Amino acid sequence: MKPGFLKGLKLDASGLKAALQNDLGRVDEFMNGALGSEIPYIDRLSDEVFQTSGKKLRPALVILAAGDPGKSSESTILAGSVVEMIHTATLLHDDVVDASILRRGHATLNARFGDGPAILMADYIYSRAITLLVEAELTQVLSLLAWTVHKMSIGELLQLELKERGLLDREAYYKVIYEKTARLIEGSCRSGAILGGRNAAEIEALSTFGRSIGMSFQIVDDVLDYQSDEGTLGKPVGSDLGEGKQTLPLLLAYESANEITRARMREMLGSAESLPKLIELVRENGGPEAAMEEARRLGREAQEALETLPKGRVREALEATASFVTQRES
Amino acid sequence: MKPGFLKGLKLDASGLKAALQNDLGRVDEFMNGALGSEIPYIDRLSDEVFQTSGKKLRPALVILAAGDPGKSSESTILAGSVVEMIHTATLLHDDVVDASILRRGHATLNARFGDGPAILMADYIYSRAITLLVEAELTQVLSLLAWTVHKMSIGELLQLELKERGLLDREAYYKVIYEKTARLIEGSCRSGAILGGRNAAEIEALSTFGRSIGMSFQIVDDVLDYQSDEGTLGKPVGSDLGEGKQTLPLLLAYESANEITRARMREMLGSAESLPKLIELVRENGGPEAAMEEARRLGREAQEALETLPKGRVREALEATASFVTQRES
Repeated sequence: MKPGFLKGLKLDASGLKAALQNDLGRVDEFMNGALGSEIPYIDRLSDEVFQTSGKKLRPALVILAAGDPGKSSESTILAGSVVEMIHTATLLHDDVVDASILRRGHATLNARFGDGPAILMADYIYSRAITLLVEAELTQVLSLLAWTVHKMSIGELLQLELKERGLLDREAYYKVIYEKTARLIEGSCRSGAILGGRNAAEIEALSTFGRSIGMSFQIVDDVLDYQSDEGTLGKPVGSDLGEGKQTLPLLLAYESANEITRARMREMLGSAESLPKLIELVRENGGPEAAMEEARRLGREAQEALETLPKGRVREALEATASFVTQRES
Repeated sequence: MKPGFLKGLKLDASGLKAALQNDLGRVDEFMNGALGSEIPYIDRLSDEVFQTSGKKLRPALVILAAGDPGKSSESTILAGSVVEMIHTATLLHDDVVDASILRRGHATLNARFGDGPAILMADYIYSRAITLLVEAELTQVLSLLAWTVHKMSIGELLQLELKERGLLDREAYYKVIYEKTARLIEGSCRSGAILGGRNAAEIEALSTFGRSIGMSFQIVDDVLDYQSDEGTLGKPVGSDLGEGKQTLPLLLAYESANEITRARMREMLGSAESLPKLIELVRENGGPEAAMEEARRLGREAQEALETLPKGRVREALEATASFVTQRES
């Protein structure tokens, strides 16, 4: 198993990292088993998809929220696998929709095999995730995650609309990142909390925690698109704006700019030629820093939500996760 | 509501057509309600998708299999809506995968709005279908249809692989059309039978019926692609072969051709230039007629399965449906 998000996690609690790693290994095994088919072509595509697997943030959150890392129940491992599968399926469709050719430093599935296999593999993975929840009779989690997926598709469609309309609308931006990113992270925490048998207050606290780090996570993603370099990021800098996505650094830079600069920014939007200059203007007007401040504020909000939980190594690991989200570099 | 498949249904039973039409109207209303959002962009795309709605064969089968057309239960209407939504979502992804620009005589959603909206609207519709089944707590039907969708994605992936490998393999063809087409028609009949409270023998009989007419339906589709004209078909003749899909007319023509013709056919496969000549060879070697004979055989198999059901207007309507499937022209 690749270290994924564990690599960047600052965690002192003795043994917890190993416990999490153990359970994330079980998630990997479970997914392998669930996605195996008798068709070599499908297995090959499946291997390709999970070979470039990501941070495993979502299954780690399910495991931590359930509260017994290292000894997670089978239901927790299953739910952790399901949220990772949903996440993976969403990325596959996103990459086709955005015509992205790079993700995590690797060529995307659509770039290597074409749009057809990428679209259908996502359908294959997502529909398998649903059958897993149905078979395990995890009714509450099934209902939660089925709605989550539906709302994610609304977030993606909203994002498309905003691109088309080219609006500069901070409220709409927040709605999009909540639906497309934070919902599933919130749902991961909530699923774990439910399966761990936590009380109502803890379930709500963990949901709030997930929502806040989810928003924070996406904002950091959007900041990295302006600040990082291609080597660290695994994809070109400025991809979002190049695709017509107006993210928080742009919106905040625009808000704080003077009228002349605003007019220039509006003119430059949607012109591929002006892209480098527009990125420069966003930086000059403090967009990335202001957005990062907002991400950190959400991170603190997440930390505060954890105060409802009993003290101990799990709470400490969740706190470390919130820090990881705002400190990561890719 | 458009007449859809009712238009072509030869049905004498007095009042049954009106009863079916009434319940299919309820399905339309239900889908409208379920797919409504507060986002004008999504509602506009949704209208576009269902404006060119098809035959409504699948919901009609749910209603007939449940056994009380005209007075279908709310669960039956819900299940009928869900199978139509699943079918619609699948077509949207298919059209992107195949880069199709025409369906049912209208420009496809991907042709009009781009691949992104088509991919995401399918995700929106499919995920909503799952939440409907979850909310209604139709556990047995949910399990059946969740697996159906997963197997359909396997069928689609298999079809892609066959296109890539360019095999002439009748067994693989049957597996593809079972998974991608017949499964959902079988699932529609089975869902209706379950919700109508039918006994085990009737549930199996209706499943067999659905599987047989599903296979028959797809074979007729594949024959029409060789035999019909663009005006009737609503898309260009020979589209399948143009996209690299080797369907039954080609496979049967190849089997019955002499060695010289076979060699010519193999040479022509995959060459856009040779397409008209290859279609001619398939026709000259009796491919469409032989495939149609197979479709009719499956139609008879479907009729025989109905003998388990009590005689009456519903059985008569199902028999008429089997005839409709092999006699339709588009």
